[in-house]
Amino acid sequence: MLNGPMEKVTALEWTGTKLRLLDQRLLPDREEWVNCETEKDVAAAIRNLVVRGAPAIGIAAAFGMVLSAKNTLKEKRNLSGALAMAKDELLRSRPTAVNLFWAVERMWTVFSQTTGANDEERAKRLEEEALKIWTEDVEANERMGELGSQLVPPGARILTHCNTGALATGGYGTALGVIRSAFRQGKVQWVWVNETRPVLQGARLTMWECQKEGIPARLIADSAGPWLMQRGMVDLVIVGADRIVANGDVANKIGTYMLALSAFHHGIPFYVAAPTSTLDFSLPSGQSIPIEERSPEEVTTWKGVRVVPVGSEGFNPAFDVTPARLISGIITEKGVARPPFTESLKALSRGGSQ
Amino acid sequence: MLNGPMEKVTALEWTGTKLRLLDQRLLPDREEWVNCETEKDVAAAIRNLVVRGAPAIGIAAAFGMVLSAKNTLKEKRNLSGALAMAKDELLRSRPTAVNLFWAVERMWTVFSQTTGANDEERAKRLEEEALKIWTEDVEANERMGELGSQLVPPGARILTHCNTGALATGGYGTALGVIRSAFRQGKVQWVWVNETRPVLQGARLTMWECQKEGIPARLIADSAGPWLMQRGMVDLVIVGADRIVANGDVANKIGTYMLALSAFHHGIPFYVAAPTSTLDFSLPSGQSIPIEERSPEEVTTWKGVRVVPVGSEGFNPAFDVTPARLISGIITEKGVARPPFTESLKALSRGGSQ
Repeated sequence: MLNGPMEKVTALEWTGTKLRLLDQRLLPDREEWVNCETEKDVAAAIRNLVVRGAPAIGIAAAFGMVLSAKNTLKEKRNLSGALAMAKDELLRSRPTAVNLFWAVERMWTVFSQTTGANDEERAKRLEEEALKIWTEDVEANERMGELGSQLVPPGARILTHCNTGALATGGYGTALGVIRSAFRQGKVQWVWVNETRPVLQGARLTMWECQKEGIPARLIADSAGPWLMQRGMVDLVIVGADRIVANGDVANKIGTYMLALSAFHHGIPFYVAAPTSTLDFSLPSGQSIPIEERSPEEVTTWKGVRVVPVGSEGFNPAFDVTPARLISGIITEKGVARPPFTESLKALSRGGSQ
Repeated sequence: MLNGPMEKVTALEWTGTKLRLLDQRLLPDREEWVNCETEKDVAAAIRNLVVRGAPAIGIAAAFGMVLSAKNTLKEKRNLSGALAMAKDELLRSRPTAVNLFWAVERMWTVFSQTTGANDEERAKRLEEEALKIWTEDVEANERMGELGSQLVPPGARILTHCNTGALATGGYGTALGVIRSAFRQGKVQWVWVNETRPVLQGARLTMWECQKEGIPARLIADSAGPWLMQRGMVDLVIVGADRIVANGDVANKIGTYMLALSAFHHGIPFYVAAPTSTLDFSLPSGQSIPIEERSPEEVTTWKGVRVVPVGSEGFNPAFDVTPARLISGIITEKGVARPPFTESLKALSRGGSQ
């Protein structure tokens, strides 16, 4: 129900006592679900990439708080202490995407505002809030789809990176949601999908979602995009975001910066699609965004198959920062921000429409 | 003997009756050799990437001509007809690297110049010429190493792409040869090795050669280089070339253009190292270089492991073209060409020194 027309692809399921997560590490070969019964389970699932995508991990973390509250209630332990610990545990799971921090803080605020209520009521209120975060995310995606698809010219060949679809969000998707809407309007010729090494979210997840939706998609090596741009084979680039700071700098999956640089050089529009929960006005520029370094083994292996000589070193920054000056527009559910972003993002977040 | 200090790594072996090729598809896991007894065997080995790297396939193709001559002699068939067919067969094996055409044409010229001699003598002369092409390539590499290493600052963190080492050449290497020489002079802090999707020549071959030589190397995803440049973690970029045309435009492994664009943007020197056999003055600019498209399966699978849903499409251009304006210098065995390349390359090829 929550996912509307996207019932085919969903990454999360809430049973009332368990958060079920589609194990995205196994896609597209197997569709298996992981049951999370505690906040620790949720934190581990986020850390291990069972669930990934900035909005999706925000939603998962919110339910991590709910699970902590419900379990504490059952065991008749102290709710405040338990939730404070759950909060810490969840916030430590991944450092770059701000939606995680945003969702957990929002849950914490709700908890803080219900000091007058009894523990059952407070837990219930937390569950309602998590469901609300989820619903709002899907609505935001659909709205971004509407707004963003207006930027897509007919016959567009769109390049995208990583996975930003239903799997990365509460449903529908951010950048892939825009592509989905544009496709339904008949405007998409095909999508160039970057395989997105090292974890291959493009090859494994975006190709899978495109196939389910019937969107024509062609997988390419990540390094091929700039060459396709030089050859005039790309009309626009749309990516998601893990964190957007006050000046419009965007942290996103490693490889985003390369695409933005190349698109800028070739005069190709480069759009970022993300809900306003991705905005972090506490940081003035991208320089201070913490960039997660993941295990070098993600690079030295390919789907579990080692490709380098034993003993080889690797370096694996999971994200990069794209400077605002390379970005044509930031598509949010509240409107499309245009440069200069320092002003336009502030205006949007004050509740403005487009 | 031919490989001097690089006896540890060699891609080719000539027995007098067979060309033995180290099967580079199996590295770094297994070191197995493929025996080529006919020009058809050699053409297949080139097509299937048993041997790869522009200079190495040139040398292999030259020995393909020798094998054709020797076999024809044994079978007492017509030498001219057989060699003309061998030439065609070999020239069809891969389209982008010009060294292949250069080597085969050089062999054909020698054959054409020996019409007065008997067939035994002509075959002998072809064998000598192939060995000479090989020896000259190794000498050219060593000279490029000397010249190129002068461009490397102390403590350099060098980014390279694909494999351009002993495996890609007659021995020593072009871009990796320069790195090798600079390393021996104590100037290399470490090498960032692009894994080089889809065939992973960086991960499988360059990491292997660096390990054998003791050069500190760190594997990265191809899309990470521009981010490392933004962070000030790259001092220079050196790559090889498959074809360099009159104006200095360079065809090389897909991903090269992205690196050049990013290096230019960040003011980081971007060098190309290639022997003069890579020069093709018949083409005025890179626009007319034929770019090989290989099977999409190279992108949708790795080592037989599929990562996309069944039925997914892919697009796999194996090379791209880097415009001359992004290139700081072209290192050849005859000197380092600097912009404007139209003049400097011509001067070099006329036999000039640096």
